[in-house]
Amino acid sequence: MSFAYSTQRILEIVGDDVEFSGEYLGEITGIASLAEAMAGDLSFLGNSKYRDAVASSAASVLLLPRDYAQTPKSGQLHIKLDNPSHALALLCRDIEKSLQPLPAPGVHPTAFIDVDAIVSPAASIGPFCCIGKGAVVGAAVLEAHVCVGRYAKVGDESHLFSQVVIGDYCVIGERNRLHPGCVIGADGYGYEFIDGAHQRIPQIGNVVTEADVDVGANTAIDRARFGSTIIGAGTKLDNQVQIAHNVRIGKHCLVVAQVAIAGSTVLGDGVILAGQAGVAGHLSIGSGAVVAGGTGVSRSLAPKEKVRGPTAEPIMLYNRVAVLQRRLPDLFKRFDKLEKRVESLPERATSE
Amino acid sequence: MSFAYSTQRILEIVGDDVEFSGEYLGEITGIASLAEAMAGDLSFLGNSKYRDAVASSAASVLLLPRDYAQTPKSGQLHIKLDNPSHALALLCRDIEKSLQPLPAPGVHPTAFIDVDAIVSPAASIGPFCCIGKGAVVGAAVLEAHVCVGRYAKVGDESHLFSQVVIGDYCVIGERNRLHPGCVIGADGYGYEFIDGAHQRIPQIGNVVTEADVDVGANTAIDRARFGSTIIGAGTKLDNQVQIAHNVRIGKHCLVVAQVAIAGSTVLGDGVILAGQAGVAGHLSIGSGAVVAGGTGVSRSLAPKEKVRGPTAEPIMLYNRVAVLQRRLPDLFKRFDKLEKRVESLPERATSE
Amino acid sequence: MSFAYSTQRILEIVGDDVEFSGEYLGEITGIASLAEAMAGDLSFLGNSKYRDAVASSAASVLLLPRDYAQTPKSGQLHIKLDNPSHALALLCRDIEKSLQPLPAPGVHPTAFIDVDAIVSPAASIGPFCCIGKGAVVGAAVLEAHVCVGRYAKVGDESHLFSQVVIGDYCVIGERNRLHPGCVIGADGYGYEFIDGAHQRIPQIGNVVTEADVDVGANTAIDRARFGSTIIGAGTKLDNQVQIAHNVRIGKHCLVVAQVAIAGSTVLGDGVILAGQAGVAGHLSIGSGAVVAGGTGVSRSLAPKEKVRGPTAEPIMLYNRVAVLQRRLPDLFKRFDKLEKRVESLPERATSE
Repeated sequence: MSFAYSTQRILEIVGDDVEFSGEYLGEITGIASLAEAMAGDLSFLGNSKYRDAVASSAASVLLLPRDYAQTPKSGQLHIKLDNPSHALALLCRDIEKSLQPLPAPGVHPTAFIDVDAIVSPAASIGPFCCIGKGAVVGAAVLEAHVCVGRYAKVGDESHLFSQVVIGDYCVIGERNRLHPGCVIGADGYGYEFIDGAHQRIPQIGNVVTEADVDVGANTAIDRARFGSTIIGAGTKLDNQVQIAHNVRIGKHCLVVAQVAIAGSTVLGDGVILAGQAGVAGHLSIGSGAVVAGGTGVSRSLAPKEKVRGPTAEPIMLYNRVAVLQRRLPDLFKRFDKLEKRVESLPERATSE
Repeated sequence: MSFAYSTQRILEIVGDDVEFSGEYLGEITGIASLAEAMAGDLSFLGNSKYRDAVASSAASVLLLPRDYAQTPKSGQLHIKLDNPSHALALLCRDIEKSLQPLPAPGVHPTAFIDVDAIVSPAASIGPFCCIGKGAVVGAAVLEAHVCVGRYAKVGDESHLFSQVVIGDYCVIGERNRLHPGCVIGADGYGYEFIDGAHQRIPQIGNVVTEADVDVGANTAIDRARFGSTIIGAGTKLDNQVQIAHNVRIGKHCLVVAQVAIAGSTVLGDGVILAGQAGVAGHLSIGSGAVVAGGTGVSRSLAPKEKVRGPTAEPIMLYNRVAVLQRRLPDLFKRFDKLEKRVESLPERATSE
Repeated sequence: MSFAYSTQRILEIVGDDVEFSGEYLGEITGIASLAEAMAGDLSFLGNSKYRDAVASSAASVLLLPRDYAQTPKSGQLHIKLDNPSHALALLCRDIEKSLQPLPAPGVHPTAFIDVDAIVSPAASIGPFCCIGKGAVVGAAVLEAHVCVGRYAKVGDESHLFSQVVIGDYCVIGERNRLHPGCVIGADGYGYEFIDGAHQRIPQIGNVVTEADVDVGANTAIDRARFGSTIIGAGTKLDNQVQIAHNVRIGKHCLVVAQVAIAGSTVLGDGVILAGQAGVAGHLSIGSGAVVAGGTGVSRSLAPKEKVRGPTAEPIMLYNRVAVLQRRLPDLFKRFDKLEKRVESLPERATSE
């Protein structure tokens, strides 16, 4: 996990529209937060609330916003540019490429590919992968133990990590990133209660993920009862998310860890569901809506609506009520006292 | 994912105790909701709230309840019968059989079966399956990468999807349907704090699923400390459900996605736990109890009790309190005003 | 799953500093709770609330606290000692060893080990395991289908159950116990919104678990953006837990099922997070803090702080407010009445 970057190499990556302050002649061999960085590390100021931590950072190179005014310590280099976070991301992307290079195209000798599957010669198929009849795999990377079901499709430049399962007939778009253990296309959860037992409703639809979708570790997306469960282009699902059958998620949504969305609910574009939120079935969540962590949504939301809490209240109202709830013990006491006081008023005072 | 059904074939499947209205001479090549159906599709009215959508549906064939009175469009066939949802399920079951036929019996050449395991000749064992010493597998289907532990049993007609793990000594009943990534029989979570550290309490029990149990993707059912964690006949667990050690679930329960049930809790029959509900340990949940989504249950529930919210209140009370909470800001204001008003009353009014 | 223990063998395991009462001459062939035990079973009193169940238990041998005074039934043996739960754990550990003996060292012929990986000759590598380039595996047990990523390390005496995934560069300490389906080292969930799309922020850090860590089934621990996500020594994670990037968990913490901890949050030592709790990102949770089940934590907690509820209130306050909320309908009614009563008071009463 080692690397070494000269200042010159850093500028090749982040661009040279920068200002310098100070000097560091060595190479960068680590990246760390301001507080944890040591000599030889690069650090950055991405969030202005950490501004005070810059002066005390032991990092050798710091990526800073242009308006950062203090002078560096001796042997420390400040690189000022428009967007330190983005510059860091560019740098990390380069490091990532060297630390985790994509495997070369080819099929590992232990993989099993059905004779009726079509696998691009540009694909990399890892150990113990299993590709079913009629499946079509583009120029994608499949790490170890990936199962691609019958007649499923995997788009070009997608990266399927170890132990991903793609169910029969499901369609994975281009440039998807599917993390270990995620399950695309298990049966939707649908039963009819007949003759004293829950009879399974067959789920003959599939799952379609559009381009640039990320799916987190151990996330599950169920196949549709019929038609498709759809994840829109650019949407990013975190770990352990549950997407029920026939859900349709728009483009560029963020669905954070352990969110669950029940059947047939439709999300617009740019929706944010924070961690552990739950959305009931057959609802419509407007574009740009924001659902706070742990919120339980049981009604449709308007575009850009912001809600929080077990009954999905407007977030400002919820926060205000939370404060007042803490004062309920006091309110009840004051009320009892007031009630007694009023009761003690002479009856004739009102009957006069 | 293509199919084609003539009207005659549809009647063979759903039965001929139907009434017709209108006419469609082609074949059905798709199934879709009323709003999404196109020419060539079959649709249905399963929920009366969508009744108005029938008239505008472009479906070529519609399964409708007998009391649906409007006439079809030109080239559209209405088939009226007792239970459109069930008729659709029968039809989908037939489609499912053709789209996802069960694999033929036999053992895939890449599978590993211990010499001391017993596998039915009627079983289908997929690629890279691993069946441990002493295991007994009936006439079941194991897709790819299924692990069956030592001395575990899998009942006839069960279907284990890819990457299911069955722990040592666990017993899977007949006609179970275990979805990808579910883990049956990991250790229960039990520790004793001794000498400054959590010492693991060995978990020497197993998991037993009775007949007709479904287990969702990435669901986990832990083995008992001793004895068995039991899932009753006909109970259906959704995705990402967590069942702790020594839990006993009755028959025909529905446990929806991301529910967690803590150790040693006992559920009666026909219990419904909606998504993301949590049930604490060592409780008893009466038969027919209904727990709303996201509810936190920390006391035992009587049969048919219906609860909701972080403190599992009676559902009617919870909903009423939710409404009143929104009025707390107003109540506090009114109270302050009232208090001032009363304080301004002359002291002698009460001392008279 | 059968075993047989004589009384003498039991004493060899639990120690002989015990008192006897009664007599049982046979062997113990099962272990069960007081209520479920049958003749031939051993049972125990671990929780004083079950004390009344001892007299009616049909167990043949009972492990009891020293102060248990009642006499056993005919043919029943009471063994009284200091810590019945611990004695039972010792016994179960012995049973576990015979029921689930560790596999012998060696590499299964179906496993794939990269030529540049280093695997201890004392390691046991199960069917279809995949060990990547540069990985180092100590004297550990890897059951079936375990993936160890490139340059990852697995410590001595660790036990990796089936279908565990260890990402590239991650480091698993000694004596870890990783349950099926857990994913160590998927990408952290980090994006920047640039040019109308969420751009992935590369995650070039890793995950480090210290000694004696347990990780539950289908739990996910994400790799750090840079540096390490750290799980401290002796910490036990239950099933389906989500640990985001750059989280640092102290020593001897208990993190129960379906808990989620967001990015960069730091936990002290001995923290307890009960089931389904959620902790927001960039927080500090003091040592010994206790978070009740389902709690949503969105502020840092002091050491030993105890909180509960969607807004993480002090637990005593939360419980009190929960009681008062049930009385809100009554309070609103009383308030309306009181308000009317006061309004009916003559104006002059205040203007006098």
